[in-house]
Amino acid sequence: MSVAPETLVHPALRVAVIGAGYWGPNLARNFAISTDWELVAICDMDLDRAEALARKTGNPSVVGSLDELLARHQIDAVAIATPARTHHQIAMQAIAAGKHVVVEKPLADNSVHGAQMVEAAAAAGTILMADHTYCYTPAVLKIRDLLADNELGEILYIDSTRINLGLVQPDVDVFWDLAPHDLSILDFVLPGGLSARTVTALGSDPLHAGKSCVGYLSMELESGILAHINVNWLSPTKIRRMVIGGSRKTLVWDDLNPQQRLTIFDRGVDLERQEMMRADAEDRKGATISYRLGDTWSPALSEFEPLGLMVSAFAASIRGARPAPTDGPSALRVLKVLEHADRSRAAAAATLSTDHSTAAMENAR
Amino acid sequence: MSVAPETLVHPALRVAVIGAGYWGPNLARNFAISTDWELVAICDMDLDRAEALARKTGNPSVVGSLDELLARHQIDAVAIATPARTHHQIAMQAIAAGKHVVVEKPLADNSVHGAQMVEAAAAAGTILMADHTYCYTPAVLKIRDLLADNELGEILYIDSTRINLGLVQPDVDVFWDLAPHDLSILDFVLPGGLSARTVTALGSDPLHAGKSCVGYLSMELESGILAHINVNWLSPTKIRRMVIGGSRKTLVWDDLNPQQRLTIFDRGVDLERQEMMRADAEDRKGATISYRLGDTWSPALSEFEPLGLMVSAFAASIRGARPAPTDGPSALRVLKVLEHADRSRAAAAATLSTDHSTAAMENAR
Amino acid sequence: MSVAPETLVHPALRVAVIGAGYWGPNLARNFAISTDWELVAICDMDLDRAEALARKTGNPSVVGSLDELLARHQIDAVAIATPARTHHQIAMQAIAAGKHVVVEKPLADNSVHGAQMVEAAAAAGTILMADHTYCYTPAVLKIRDLLADNELGEILYIDSTRINLGLVQPDVDVFWDLAPHDLSILDFVLPGGLSARTVTALGSDPLHAGKSCVGYLSMELESGILAHINVNWLSPTKIRRMVIGGSRKTLVWDDLNPQQRLTIFDRGVDLERQEMMRADAEDRKGATISYRLGDTWSPALSEFEPLGLMVSAFAASIRGARPAPTDGPSALRVLKVLEHADRSRAAAAATLSTDHSTAAMENAR
Amino acid sequence: MSVAPETLVHPALRVAVIGAGYWGPNLARNFAISTDWELVAICDMDLDRAEALARKTGNPSVVGSLDELLARHQIDAVAIATPARTHHQIAMQAIAAGKHVVVEKPLADNSVHGAQMVEAAAAAGTILMADHTYCYTPAVLKIRDLLADNELGEILYIDSTRINLGLVQPDVDVFWDLAPHDLSILDFVLPGGLSARTVTALGSDPLHAGKSCVGYLSMELESGILAHINVNWLSPTKIRRMVIGGSRKTLVWDDLNPQQRLTIFDRGVDLERQEMMRADAEDRKGATISYRLGDTWSPALSEFEPLGLMVSAFAASIRGARPAPTDGPSALRVLKVLEHADRSRAAAAATLSTDHSTAAMENAR
Repeated sequence: MSVAPETLVHPALRVAVIGAGYWGPNLARNFAISTDWELVAICDMDLDRAEALARKTGNPSVVGSLDELLARHQIDAVAIATPARTHHQIAMQAIAAGKHVVVEKPLADNSVHGAQMVEAAAAAGTILMADHTYCYTPAVLKIRDLLADNELGEILYIDSTRINLGLVQPDVDVFWDLAPHDLSILDFVLPGGLSARTVTALGSDPLHAGKSCVGYLSMELESGILAHINVNWLSPTKIRRMVIGGSRKTLVWDDLNPQQRLTIFDRGVDLERQEMMRADAEDRKGATISYRLGDTWSPALSEFEPLGLMVSAFAASIRGARPAPTDGPSALRVLKVLEHADRSRAAAAATLSTDHSTAAMENAR
Repeated sequence: MSVAPETLVHPALRVAVIGAGYWGPNLARNFAISTDWELVAICDMDLDRAEALARKTGNPSVVGSLDELLARHQIDAVAIATPARTHHQIAMQAIAAGKHVVVEKPLADNSVHGAQMVEAAAAAGTILMADHTYCYTPAVLKIRDLLADNELGEILYIDSTRINLGLVQPDVDVFWDLAPHDLSILDFVLPGGLSARTVTALGSDPLHAGKSCVGYLSMELESGILAHINVNWLSPTKIRRMVIGGSRKTLVWDDLNPQQRLTIFDRGVDLERQEMMRADAEDRKGATISYRLGDTWSPALSEFEPLGLMVSAFAASIRGARPAPTDGPSALRVLKVLEHADRSRAAAAATLSTDHSTAAMENAR
Repeated sequence: MSVAPETLVHPALRVAVIGAGYWGPNLARNFAISTDWELVAICDMDLDRAEALARKTGNPSVVGSLDELLARHQIDAVAIATPARTHHQIAMQAIAAGKHVVVEKPLADNSVHGAQMVEAAAAAGTILMADHTYCYTPAVLKIRDLLADNELGEILYIDSTRINLGLVQPDVDVFWDLAPHDLSILDFVLPGGLSARTVTALGSDPLHAGKSCVGYLSMELESGILAHINVNWLSPTKIRRMVIGGSRKTLVWDDLNPQQRLTIFDRGVDLERQEMMRADAEDRKGATISYRLGDTWSPALSEFEPLGLMVSAFAASIRGARPAPTDGPSALRVLKVLEHADRSRAAAAATLSTDHSTAAMENAR
Repeated sequence: MSVAPETLVHPALRVAVIGAGYWGPNLARNFAISTDWELVAICDMDLDRAEALARKTGNPSVVGSLDELLARHQIDAVAIATPARTHHQIAMQAIAAGKHVVVEKPLADNSVHGAQMVEAAAAAGTILMADHTYCYTPAVLKIRDLLADNELGEILYIDSTRINLGLVQPDVDVFWDLAPHDLSILDFVLPGGLSARTVTALGSDPLHAGKSCVGYLSMELESGILAHINVNWLSPTKIRRMVIGGSRKTLVWDDLNPQQRLTIFDRGVDLERQEMMRADAEDRKGATISYRLGDTWSPALSEFEPLGLMVSAFAASIRGARPAPTDGPSALRVLKVLEHADRSRAAAAATLSTDHSTAAMENAR
């Protein structure tokens, strides 16, 4: 591939990847092949792991600590792929050193930490970005375009399912493990971002694992509609599907169907016709024609590596000094919904005996 | 078809169908072709409609009122297929006249009415049965057998989805229209019947139709697990799927896949192995082998008309003087969950501002 | 339903259905409910069967023979649903009596008989029509429109699969049982009708049933392209799918997917780009971008009873004195392909040892 | 991973990969990570390409010619991933030098060359193996086990479909590009290997690309049954499915369905019951119960890299001095079928006007 004119104007930015465990290698590989970036170092306390990764990514330097990284290497940015509980400390130190920061999801282990990171980056004038990788997939980008163009009309409901056989994680429950994907996608595609009035969550721990393995999270959005998310670690069938129902059209994103990931149904309830019908229809039979059955359409999607686009977007944010598409405040909104979901479950547990919004069934049989 | 010995012993029972609208014709047709039954009369205020139905079902008598039916015809039983709000009055009169009664779902428009019907039938010694048709399908009968044989192990979670483009009903919301199917099925297949500790429901009316068109109903069952039901009238894609996750196996019932309606996955999280692994595994990668991937199995299902089996079961209950598989108390349990769901939604609306079990998000952005 | 103005102008045509076995009841039911038709009589040697059918279709007369039917009843038309070997004799007698005739597929048991029927009807000025029911389905009508509008561009290939567990028929092999569907559909949708230069067929009788149960039929059409049909009685999975590949778009008709029966792919090999690439590309990798990946589209289809449309089209042909959409000559073209397929298999059997167009493999191991 | 005892006994074999284009990198990567092998060299005339590959695979030596490779490096084996027309020359030279050889499919560009390679290897006592990668996938290994255990009963028919949008290859047609997969799989799974009595092939070149882009290849196997293969470069939908119908059960392999790749249907035509029925059944209706509808079963499959198993099998063959599972004679059988298919198409073209086994349709309209 020839050198593009832009890269002559913009010398490559220098980045270090911190954390060589599960996700770090994906980040390192994408920084290594990007013309926007020069991968300068891999940082991990486990030097063997860091060196193994360095060998596959063009032999950047290997360092064992953040102090060493900041002291010994000239870098513009760091990419943090360490356990969530360490994000805050590492990011704060990097921001303090004037570095731009991209953080694996979730941004932090709680919203207080997240808010401090957002404020620190704003004060330092550095870019803080969350690696919400799904937002850089062709399907999600297309969904955002469709909603921005008002293709679906008014949004009526949102329903997302993300279930699979998954390991019971040692540090997080199924909400914190899986729902950040759905929440960050919603924040990205909804024209006004994610804005929930209320959050209701129900979790279940049928394996007695000490944390929810099955979860349902409902949000009443500012517009008054319901967005519902189902996450589950115990399902032998794998489903990753989001439905966004609109007054004109409905979109179904089936991420596991590579031949038809996005489908837009030009179908819906035809309210005017329904009103007319209700006037003189007495039974169900007469009413069956009250919805509109139009065509179905599946847009072609480009194929590219989402992480490749993410690292490009990070570079563009830095160069343009403008927020990233999945910036700190966006990631903070995701954290806040997760925390409200925690609170909702705690409150639900507390109110079971007092028959508030969950209705006790003591006399149901 | 030759006359079977049983029908020599048991002369056909005499039945009238009340209501010739949407569902009555299905009942009449099945009574007409059953060797257990003689269809004696069709009763409907709309005599034209009743006569049209009579012409297709062997020309039973046509009557315009229940009084006339009970006065002029010798019958053993009535089948009620009128609007739900009329079930109670018709059934009570028929029971008072000593008739056996089968009622289209829901049993009644509220649980007080339902309980009166159950008590009256018990006092009169007549059979009261709900036509929960799904319970007589080959798939649901097979599910009941599998659970009775403990094929799945301990049940861990239940998730049912019943969504479609459906007419906004004039008299009921989406919960009362669709969830009785799921609830009656659960009552039928679960070894101890349906027994919910608490019910939490969230509904949404994005079309401003004056009632919920999108609904989520969660029950904490006596065993502590969650059963979740999603009903929706606004979905352009039709899904009728129930998942019952067990400690040994998981069952998926996809009612719209005629080639593989039931699938049993011999897969799950392997807790012991997971414990072992957690001891020395530090990252997610090492943990990916912690679940068990066994075979998948799809049992052959017989093919028969569920309503045909339902009318047979009604006859067998009467002759054996034993409760029907979907008897009055079963139908009453379904009504009570629906009422608790109504109450849960009303309470949720009331508590939104006081941040009880739904967590207000006023500061989420 | 009110009486439409047309039916005042056109009094109902009078029809008798001959044959009350497998298909006759479907015809009788559709004639009975059509405002274009009056069902006058059911004719079957088995009078019990005829009477049972008459009772369900408005009580037309019942007759035991064609002679009696023609002698005693004033009719405009007959619908023949008897075994294929009797079609010729019955149709010839009805045409001789001046009746319009619609015949269940296949038109006749051989093309000589079929040609005589076509000639006789032409000479008598009566309508001769084949009940190629699939041609009156919403999907096939839409396919015909799309091809007539040249939506696909030049047709490149056609591939049809029609497999299922099916009874080994006593009188016909799998080609004569199933391929008439595919052939009549092709004749109906292809702008110039079905016009094969050559027919190659391979059949297999692995059960030693005395006839082919698995069959492959290929036609080189006049345009030079291949149309291939796979029929199979022994497949545990049911597939009914036709692919029509075009230079611009490709159509897939999956008749067993009610939610997306027709799909049009705006995808294909991009020849110009491919030429350019071939110039400087040496290996496969470089070439993977040489096709065009456009949108996918699934048109909404009306829902109606195909046989209802068929009996309407029969009436319209009679009233307009114009050929039916699936007229005699069309049905004759189907018969001729089936006969050439028979001949191809006979010849293939004869030439196996002489290594003509099937290549003997005696030394392959 | 700890060092296994075997690798102490067996020092790693030394291998060079020849050809760094499309497939060579996959081979090199698997040799590099195998404990059975030491990847000694990459050989390619394009030294840049070879060096780029070497950098990703542990830095083996890079050489620009086979002569240099054989002169300068001590190796036990070579893996050939060059264009098919060069396989023969390279393999013969390597065999002459006493090297074991694995060749990317197809073994050679014609069966004369293939036979010379098989003979040379036999004479030299070296292993000659074809990299028929599919034969080392979990699904195909399972199919072989099932057939070896006679799970399906007598095989009745085989039908394979391998269609996709694919580049029109510069050197081969769609038969030589895609059918080797199906043929090598059949040779691998059929208990007696692939043994065709006759081969009939029909190809079509609707794009005027100078070679078949759509192909149908039928074989009459020694057992008398038909095996049919459909290959197509022009299909916008991707299908890779093989059906093996048996007298007891039928197997469907859907390679693009990762959740249920293999399905075994315990369904079929029940011949005895069918005989009984035919005796007194006159019409189709009575006959519809004549097949057996049993359970469906989908075995769990292990997950591993097929090429990893292939390179292990190559090592095991060399060490055990026994033929590889996909040895030279097996690959030669595949070549011979492909050549007979070429001949069949040439003969079919020649006999079109003389109405042999393809039946000319000059008078069909």
